[in-house]
Amino acid sequence: MTKTPTILVVGTGNVAWHLCNAFKDSNCKIKGIVGRNTSELDSFSRQFNIESFGFHDFPNSEVILIAVSDDKINKVSEIFKASNALVVHTSGTKSIAELCEEIKNKGVFYPFQTFSKNKPLNYKSTPIFIETEKPENTNFMKTLAGEISSKVHDLDSTSRKELHLAGVLSNNFVNALIGEATSLLTKNNIPTEVMWPLLEETIAKAKSLGAKDAQTGPAKRGDSKSIEAHLELLKSNDQLKKLYSIMSNLIQERHS
Amino acid sequence: MTKTPTILVVGTGNVAWHLCNAFKDSNCKIKGIVGRNTSELDSFSRQFNIESFGFHDFPNSEVILIAVSDDKINKVSEIFKASNALVVHTSGTKSIAELCEEIKNKGVFYPFQTFSKNKPLNYKSTPIFIETEKPENTNFMKTLAGEISSKVHDLDSTSRKELHLAGVLSNNFVNALIGEATSLLTKNNIPTEVMWPLLEETIAKAKSLGAKDAQTGPAKRGDSKSIEAHLELLKSNDQLKKLYSIMSNLIQERHS
Repeated sequence: MTKTPTILVVGTGNVAWHLCNAFKDSNCKIKGIVGRNTSELDSFSRQFNIESFGFHDFPNSEVILIAVSDDKINKVSEIFKASNALVVHTSGTKSIAELCEEIKNKGVFYPFQTFSKNKPLNYKSTPIFIETEKPENTNFMKTLAGEISSKVHDLDSTSRKELHLAGVLSNNFVNALIGEATSLLTKNNIPTEVMWPLLEETIAKAKSLGAKDAQTGPAKRGDSKSIEAHLELLKSNDQLKKLYSIMSNLIQERHS
Repeated sequence: MTKTPTILVVGTGNVAWHLCNAFKDSNCKIKGIVGRNTSELDSFSRQFNIESFGFHDFPNSEVILIAVSDDKINKVSEIFKASNALVVHTSGTKSIAELCEEIKNKGVFYPFQTFSKNKPLNYKSTPIFIETEKPENTNFMKTLAGEISSKVHDLDSTSRKELHLAGVLSNNFVNALIGEATSLLTKNNIPTEVMWPLLEETIAKAKSLGAKDAQTGPAKRGDSKSIEAHLELLKSNDQLKKLYSIMSNLIQERHS
């Protein structure tokens, strides 16, 4: 790796935005943003003071970071099949083999985080999971990821899929539970802000005790009276009632 | 309310511990801890430098805070039926009427938080939900709760049950999801610490955007290929597979 390796970021979504935002303060040089949507490209250009390129007129670079939706990775990667760069995708679910076969130096660069444009993040503590096809590219990938994060891990495509599933549980499903709790509070005219201290303490306790020891509640202590009372409250909320039952069964099974 | 109202705390569990810990730094005076378990009483005595009493030899006080398990509230409250004190329980699920009928001044003092002994908390930001039977006791209860928290809310017994259910979703169920995610990581030799930045950002995003706008993932975008792939990964994990399906259905229903 040169002292200031050059990067092209491909895509104009949330992940692309955060890659630009993270690498702009690193020793790497973002040579440009590549994409199709010209108004988005303009916005990236202005915001990060970088050049923008269409899919057929981009310059050379040492790294090409493809941050497009999962089902477009293969097609988009074909554009770079003649490149000598390290071409990587950023998906949790897709294997490294999703990159077009002819690419000589393939890799995966998967940041384990939830991204929204314009919402700053602490990149140093964001875990990045890397994979390369050729062992000789591993150190380059490690150095590259290490430019923005201090939590770089090697992970193969099979395990990365299970990591992504863990991410769905921790982010999508936790958020959905917060949504259901919000609805219950709103229905009872309780300000939703009362939830945050409890949620923050829930995470803090799981972190310090481990989730197994931190588990409490009716299901954990086998309090079927409270479970019945909750199910009665949910009698006209079919989906949440089902979820409550399944979740209580799961907790009882895991803690019995 | 006098300038230094006197309190008896009844019970030696997690909630009792935190009531003692919170009120010891307030303008209220803890007259003592009341309970059955003598070794626990001794430990409270030493830790908070307060007197301890059995169920039949306690002194008078202006407030009696009953922090025992739900199914013991009624029985324990009978002991105080002749008292002129404000007698309150601290349960989310039990109605104010769970307190023995003869008690003249009944109340509920429900802190919406998850408690572990010896784990310090910011009480000022812990929401407390109060209820009194007689309107003339409301101001006293507000002042009392205001001694430890700046987030005091009136709430009746019916709504408090739904609030408690929201607490089960936000704490017990979120923790259970963290437990499942932990297992997936451990199975793949991934350090579990990689979860915390994602979980903390999940809470931060729900807080800033609202859970509805913060929802992302395969279920939200109707990506049935990813959902199928996740269910395939879970084929030998029956409980979590069921949970995944129900949760995905719920997300799709709420966002369609």
